[in-house]
Amino acid sequence: MVSPLFTDLYQLTMMCAYLENGKKERAAFELFVRELPEKRNYLVFAGLEEVLKALEEFHFSKDDIDYLFSLKIFPDWFLDYLKEFSFSGDVYAMDEGTPFFQYEPVLRVEAPIAEAQLLETFVMNQIHISSLIASKAARVYSVAEGRVLADFSLRRTHGIDAGLKVARSCYLAGFDATSNVLAGKIYGVPVVGTVAHSFIMSFESEEEAFRAYAKVFPNNTVLLVDTYDTVEGVKKAIEVGEELLKRGFRLKGIRLDSGNVEELAKIARRLLDEAGMDYVKIIVSGGLDEYRIKEIISSGAPVDGFGVGTKVGTSADAPYIDFVYKLVEFDGQPVMKTSSGKKMYPGRKQVFRLEGYDVVSLWGEQFDGKPLLKQFMKDGRVVESLPSLNEVREYTIEQLHSLPESVLSIDRKVNYRVDISDSLNRLYKELRERLLGGSRS
Amino acid sequence: MVSPLFTDLYQLTMMCAYLENGKKERAAFELFVRELPEKRNYLVFAGLEEVLKALEEFHFSKDDIDYLFSLKIFPDWFLDYLKEFSFSGDVYAMDEGTPFFQYEPVLRVEAPIAEAQLLETFVMNQIHISSLIASKAARVYSVAEGRVLADFSLRRTHGIDAGLKVARSCYLAGFDATSNVLAGKIYGVPVVGTVAHSFIMSFESEEEAFRAYAKVFPNNTVLLVDTYDTVEGVKKAIEVGEELLKRGFRLKGIRLDSGNVEELAKIARRLLDEAGMDYVKIIVSGGLDEYRIKEIISSGAPVDGFGVGTKVGTSADAPYIDFVYKLVEFDGQPVMKTSSGKKMYPGRKQVFRLEGYDVVSLWGEQFDGKPLLKQFMKDGRVVESLPSLNEVREYTIEQLHSLPESVLSIDRKVNYRVDISDSLNRLYKELRERLLGGSRS
Repeated sequence: MVSPLFTDLYQLTMMCAYLENGKKERAAFELFVRELPEKRNYLVFAGLEEVLKALEEFHFSKDDIDYLFSLKIFPDWFLDYLKEFSFSGDVYAMDEGTPFFQYEPVLRVEAPIAEAQLLETFVMNQIHISSLIASKAARVYSVAEGRVLADFSLRRTHGIDAGLKVARSCYLAGFDATSNVLAGKIYGVPVVGTVAHSFIMSFESEEEAFRAYAKVFPNNTVLLVDTYDTVEGVKKAIEVGEELLKRGFRLKGIRLDSGNVEELAKIARRLLDEAGMDYVKIIVSGGLDEYRIKEIISSGAPVDGFGVGTKVGTSADAPYIDFVYKLVEFDGQPVMKTSSGKKMYPGRKQVFRLEGYDVVSLWGEQFDGKPLLKQFMKDGRVVESLPSLNEVREYTIEQLHSLPESVLSIDRKVNYRVDISDSLNRLYKELRERLLGGSRS
Repeated sequence: MVSPLFTDLYQLTMMCAYLENGKKERAAFELFVRELPEKRNYLVFAGLEEVLKALEEFHFSKDDIDYLFSLKIFPDWFLDYLKEFSFSGDVYAMDEGTPFFQYEPVLRVEAPIAEAQLLETFVMNQIHISSLIASKAARVYSVAEGRVLADFSLRRTHGIDAGLKVARSCYLAGFDATSNVLAGKIYGVPVVGTVAHSFIMSFESEEEAFRAYAKVFPNNTVLLVDTYDTVEGVKKAIEVGEELLKRGFRLKGIRLDSGNVEELAKIARRLLDEAGMDYVKIIVSGGLDEYRIKEIISSGAPVDGFGVGTKVGTSADAPYIDFVYKLVEFDGQPVMKTSSGKKMYPGRKQVFRLEGYDVVSLWGEQFDGKPLLKQFMKDGRVVESLPSLNEVREYTIEQLHSLPESVLSIDRKVNYRVDISDSLNRLYKELRERLLGGSRS
């Protein structure tokens, strides 16, 4: 369980100031993006399940309170309040795996304002990392044309939590497996692996290393063939594959991790096929992302699967999403800010998905098309049964296939149409005029 | 404590294969980069303390073993071995806060090969995120010319662990504080905060919101002035500052988060000074990084401090470092691989820092200049007393100041000179010839 101290200090000081000033009104905060990253035509919402579970258990430990006390900035009554704190509010959200676009709320928190305020940092952080990676991984899935995809990014994800979220989000967005054993344990994502260069190098010769590995995992051997000379490595893998066959097993695959992999995959396929090993898969890894995978597939290289690492695990071409968590309603009244260059729409909203475009409306309006937001948490408890990760994965894949072809492009910027309903637009204009006049209402 | 399952599956299968094949020899693995990211002239080593502490406690829980058993790929004797596993090896490393360059080992693990292999993923992951952010934050520090720097990135770091590591690494590299309360508790980093737009918006008027906050934190109020109209916001902050003064307190600061901050800071400073409030600090936030901070400072804008967020917390212009962890010695013999495009130097190494350049040598060679690697862990226990975070911070700042001016440039690529010693070069060539001949030794 993560501590509620995983927040910005101002959330706590604002909480304290809300309460000290008697502000117990309910507020609604919505999480959305004003603009998609330049390299993204769509984003994929992810991370909801873990946020909901954490909110159900959110509480300050004695250590947490002692630390806050040591800061000497909070009154005692506030620390007493925190000791008893639990989240009592409601959460509305899209289903995990739903593609989303600019100005669409993906999640809304409704609660007494002090509670909803505290959640800002944690909710943003967690939805951000999961959605960031799901959005990147979906692009990889969309170009892989059914080839096997494995997340190999753990060594360069941004820390431990990111490593776990990356494995989950990649799987959710269509990957088949991860190398991350802890993610296998926690989320049930299938785990896979091959062999590293160090293993090969620790033996007197490459063939000896291959043989030593195949001896222990005869059912499950994918040999790395590029430690010294790749073509020679393939030939040695074939020798070991023949030895395995005599023992009644089949070599599972070989992995190419450097050099001209398009060329090398063709050579390897020919050598393997000539040896009667058409069943041996060719796996490619090393600096891959959706751009490179598209290139390799376009070349006609006979690659069966990709081990995808750092560039996906850090979403390197778009390493963050500008999510914001904004107060949209206070005490039943729609609110907004007018800060320069930071447009937002007031009021609680719904998003409808129609044929090839979306409408963002006020909550309660009706449009033809599927409403994307629904209630997941009421009075601090989860009220909607959550799908399994495999169900989320199926739903995500189906959603990706239902997007317009052009939006799936990985190298052309396409703006998906998002309409703002007339009522919402009217409210925005009225409120803006009033606010620039100088007061909130 | 993190589970040793936080690793790639192949580390465990290779461990098993090493042991099954009777390979109990000691191995040395070194962590280094072949090339710095394009936007970096130097990197800063960080993350050592937490790695060492974790290694001292590394063990598999019963749950971990049960999960591995459920995979049905490991023999029972191996799971029994893991139950008793603890790390028994040695770790050599640079001091945290040391700038480093291409081909310089920053850390070396020496242990029976199965143990050293297992550590690869965890050690890489943790040193990566901490060093990535320390390297980015150092650039911000180097352009800030003594102005106050606070880490405000928590909402968009890549998950929970990254949030903590970012706060620590920013502080280590010269930042003054973080908004991250949990990092304050865990690492003792000073915590700071201001007010958010939502707080302002929840009150009938901006001045009412300012007053409400100042009432609760009269000693510690930094008012956000851009929710509606910034210049009007500054005037209202001054009113509230005057009320505070009557109560015997001083308004601490104002924060600008949008618009033309260069211009607005000048106007705000003038208005504040005219009101006799030269003590009120002007803090700027919103999309900042070293490039933007340099621009703001160059404009002559009277900014006292910066709240730095997402772009630093994700190292957005270089979101990963290509660290590798390579086997360099096995059973006392130097080893290397020859994979195309992936150069490495064999053998255990030392790095010497001389006047304006470094020498990478074989371990045991002597050069004038400071040797950068020393032993921190022996037989699985920390043997070197670790500096406090404040000591690391002082050391880092001193190190940054000792780098050649040109290397500190944030917008010009400068290659720091790294020499390879003659002995090391000779060994590399000999080994390469032998390996391309086809065998390791």
